[in-house]
Amino acid sequence: MTTTINDMQLHTISFYFLLFISSVANAQETTAYRSGIKERITISSAILKEDRIIYIHHPVSDSAASTKRYPVLYLFDGESHFDMLAQYTDYLSRWDVAVMPEMIVVGIVNTQRTRDLTPVESNIDYYGKTDTSSVSWMKPSGGNGLLLQFISSELMPYMDAHYKTAAHKILAGHSFGGIATLNCMLTRPDMFDAYIAASPSLWWGNEYILKLADSKLSKGSTLHKQLFYCDANEGAADSTSFHTNLLRFDSLVKSKNIQGLSRQYTYYPSETHMTSPMPAYYDALRFIYREWKPAVEKQ
Amino acid sequence: MTTTINDMQLHTISFYFLLFISSVANAQETTAYRSGIKERITISSAILKEDRIIYIHHPVSDSAASTKRYPVLYLFDGESHFDMLAQYTDYLSRWDVAVMPEMIVVGIVNTQRTRDLTPVESNIDYYGKTDTSSVSWMKPSGGNGLLLQFISSELMPYMDAHYKTAAHKILAGHSFGGIATLNCMLTRPDMFDAYIAASPSLWWGNEYILKLADSKLSKGSTLHKQLFYCDANEGAADSTSFHTNLLRFDSLVKSKNIQGLSRQYTYYPSETHMTSPMPAYYDALRFIYREWKPAVEKQ
Repeated sequence: MTTTINDMQLHTISFYFLLFISSVANAQETTAYRSGIKERITISSAILKEDRIIYIHHPVSDSAASTKRYPVLYLFDGESHFDMLAQYTDYLSRWDVAVMPEMIVVGIVNTQRTRDLTPVESNIDYYGKTDTSSVSWMKPSGGNGLLLQFISSELMPYMDAHYKTAAHKILAGHSFGGIATLNCMLTRPDMFDAYIAASPSLWWGNEYILKLADSKLSKGSTLHKQLFYCDANEGAADSTSFHTNLLRFDSLVKSKNIQGLSRQYTYYPSETHMTSPMPAYYDALRFIYREWKPAVEKQ
Repeated sequence: MTTTINDMQLHTISFYFLLFISSVANAQETTAYRSGIKERITISSAILKEDRIIYIHHPVSDSAASTKRYPVLYLFDGESHFDMLAQYTDYLSRWDVAVMPEMIVVGIVNTQRTRDLTPVESNIDYYGKTDTSSVSWMKPSGGNGLLLQFISSELMPYMDAHYKTAAHKILAGHSFGGIATLNCMLTRPDMFDAYIAASPSLWWGNEYILKLADSKLSKGSTLHKQLFYCDANEGAADSTSFHTNLLRFDSLVKSKNIQGLSRQYTYYPSETHMTSPMPAYYDALRFIYREWKPAVEKQ
């Protein structure tokens, strides 16, 4: 575990940084542009037995004097979508836009992506081909449970100790990050309040998540969560069952008639697997906060 | 006019900045997170007789050694939407997303917004009320022509001299920035190749832009441009003619049957005036580059 510098120190650093730039640029007027506060920390994880880089974005108004606390969005694939979520949450929570609260965004940067984001070990690739090679890109896999343990036992306590976190927490992921998100809701429902699974790779491990959802979600049971999931042109573009799997998941969840589970499924036929996070993360935030009002926030 | 520091100098600054942060933070592992290159310059405008702050985002790969050049997106209301466009263009041009080219984004920060973004002087407000007060928020107005002159005669030459600009240029604006964008297409079509008018305030000055479009666009004439415009729930939310004006503009442009003009009009009934830029700027970029392929870019 590491510690962070506080806001006053950060402001001091910014001040000196500006002075520093001025002296280098010398009478020229180009300076670095700054928006919001973004940090990069390293946590030495005892659970994962490695150092993990974490990106953190928090509202500018998060001063030491304020008693305001902020919901936290934890994000898989931090290196890919951290800027996106930071910008979305910043803009949508502006006083003159005001459709969601200000938020802390925590981007978890990958070390071994397949190992950490897949919920079960598998050597069957996207096209159904088994790869028994010792150097297969699918090796190692199935370590998502351990990553969730890192989040709940190391990352969340770190965030709660060093930032003005509120209780409300969202988990968001794309592709393998999407199945990791669903795996978390199904196996560790204590951890988060809302889930965003953008184009989840339901094909992984003989459609492991579909089977897990069927066994974990008891018909008519109660689960007070918000869940957004989507897919794009994946199935249509490559004649795979990507889209069919999403439809199956959607039907399955519907048929379980879970009390308190608020869902939205969106299909983006004109988006690709890689563009879908842009509309999906936007629509998901609007879905999660569709009943939110600034007045409630200000009370 | 001012000058900028070059890439090598910027890299040197970044290097020293990281060293500097390290020495302050002292054995702690929090550092500032950096994404892409964003700069802030000040241009002393002879045309506007004032200093203007400009935000510039350019691709990281824009090194001194490269011969690659980048299209440029000029953006009104830089203080509001610069981060958004920087993030959108960054993400959509990533090698593994690749639906548009890398791009330079230039955000023009306001000094007197109403003066600079309105194409004609007016003292009639959104609800049709005339305000003759000498301290009216609508005073001064009608200076958009002068701002366009600043862009073409001072800002564009500065950008072309200091950055790896390609010829292709886009102009984007929201609300008053939306009518400024349309005003530019109608009065100075030499300046840009594509236009994004998000929720343009067509009501301004007795629907001045509607009249201007009618007089400037000759039936069956040729104008090789791309044009995206949209509106949100403005008309429905406040019982004004905001939406009707967009429909009238859309019909007008259609009826002119302009050769070479590629258009998209999108109505976002579930977005507000302030949220509409988020889907609109995304959809507009996808529209403008709908036929773009990475292979062409690489040739």
